[in-house]
Amino acid sequence: MSSERGPRRGLMFVISSPSGAGKTSLSRQLVANHSALSLSVSCTTRGPRPGEVEGREYYFVDRPAFDGMVAADNFLEWAEVHEHRYGTPRAPVMASLEAGTDVLFDIDWQGAMTVAAEAPNDVVRVFILPPSMVDLRRRLFARAQDSAEVIERRLERAYGEIRMWAEYDYVIVNDDFDSAYAELAHIYHAERLKRIRNPWLNKLVPDLLSQSS
Amino acid sequence: MSSERGPRRGLMFVISSPSGAGKTSLSRQLVANHSALSLSVSCTTRGPRPGEVEGREYYFVDRPAFDGMVAADNFLEWAEVHEHRYGTPRAPVMASLEAGTDVLFDIDWQGAMTVAAEAPNDVVRVFILPPSMVDLRRRLFARAQDSAEVIERRLERAYGEIRMWAEYDYVIVNDDFDSAYAELAHIYHAERLKRIRNPWLNKLVPDLLSQSS
Repeated sequence: MSSERGPRRGLMFVISSPSGAGKTSLSRQLVANHSALSLSVSCTTRGPRPGEVEGREYYFVDRPAFDGMVAADNFLEWAEVHEHRYGTPRAPVMASLEAGTDVLFDIDWQGAMTVAAEAPNDVVRVFILPPSMVDLRRRLFARAQDSAEVIERRLERAYGEIRMWAEYDYVIVNDDFDSAYAELAHIYHAERLKRIRNPWLNKLVPDLLSQSS
Repeated sequence: MSSERGPRRGLMFVISSPSGAGKTSLSRQLVANHSALSLSVSCTTRGPRPGEVEGREYYFVDRPAFDGMVAADNFLEWAEVHEHRYGTPRAPVMASLEAGTDVLFDIDWQGAMTVAAEAPNDVVRVFILPPSMVDLRRRLFARAQDSAEVIERRLERAYGEIRMWAEYDYVIVNDDFDSAYAELAHIYHAERLKRIRNPWLNKLVPDLLSQSS
């Protein structure tokens, strides 16, 4: 991308959606396709699901360790969801941003609001909506990852998440993965092109103006 | 684009650059590729150049007709540049926006500021920079459209235009047409996905929340 010409200010790209609306697949594809974007890996007190890898999906920690990190202010944001705690470790995010790498956050609206309050000019918030609630149920069952009881709780919680849609900068309706992904990529690329995110322009333009033609 | 799902609020997409930096070619390709985007055609008091068509590049009007339109407040913005007057007729822009069509403006910074003041929430401003002033000179000569004297005046004016870069939301450096076009298209698509530009979401979300899963 020809916009990457000098020191950048890292962007915090927050994606939220109710469980099952596709934010994890969309996020992971965006990160896989963009070397300047890394995924923020959360800590959680819940146990790993089959196939989940320590440090890839989550850092799995026990409750005392988690609470110790809370006490030490080591989380950018944290929340309790369905009796488990989830938190975004502050240090790796700050290191990425300082190195000019963007960070993607796959977090809920509570986390999105906390992160946005931390650095309002560097945060972009995207909400992914399912096309219908029946479709959301279908997807949660199709991924065969949770018990029926857990799915019912996720669905119940989905209504509360969707109610927060107006707190986001962009909204994508995910009724087709490829279209939704293209939309997400447009948002990411465009946000990178914002004048305020490219401090190297503050040097390029005076250089241009000092040249004779 | 799956975001086009209901009544939209038309966007005013303003592109500025010094003469020769590529805004006209970029603008015309963006309009050609997007049926929901139309080009605002300005009125001018200068005569048509070879190949220019009335109503396509400009509406060619004489000075009394132009000044009559100014007096009747028929222009969204107008300015005098190199002894000729240029103005954006208000009526077709308003008709397009009301119909939900976006309008692209290929205008200078004075016009961009006036249009932005008219409807701050509906305006997106993009500035196209040349990679160097020597490159700008080369392009102005290569297009073989103006006399050497006119090119010198355009180059002189370019410095003043570039000085206004910080008034724009996005900045693209055009050292490769295809990359610059891709960046422009990302910006256009992303801006269309902003929550505030999609009032149909105000109906979709309550509909979703009223569904049982």
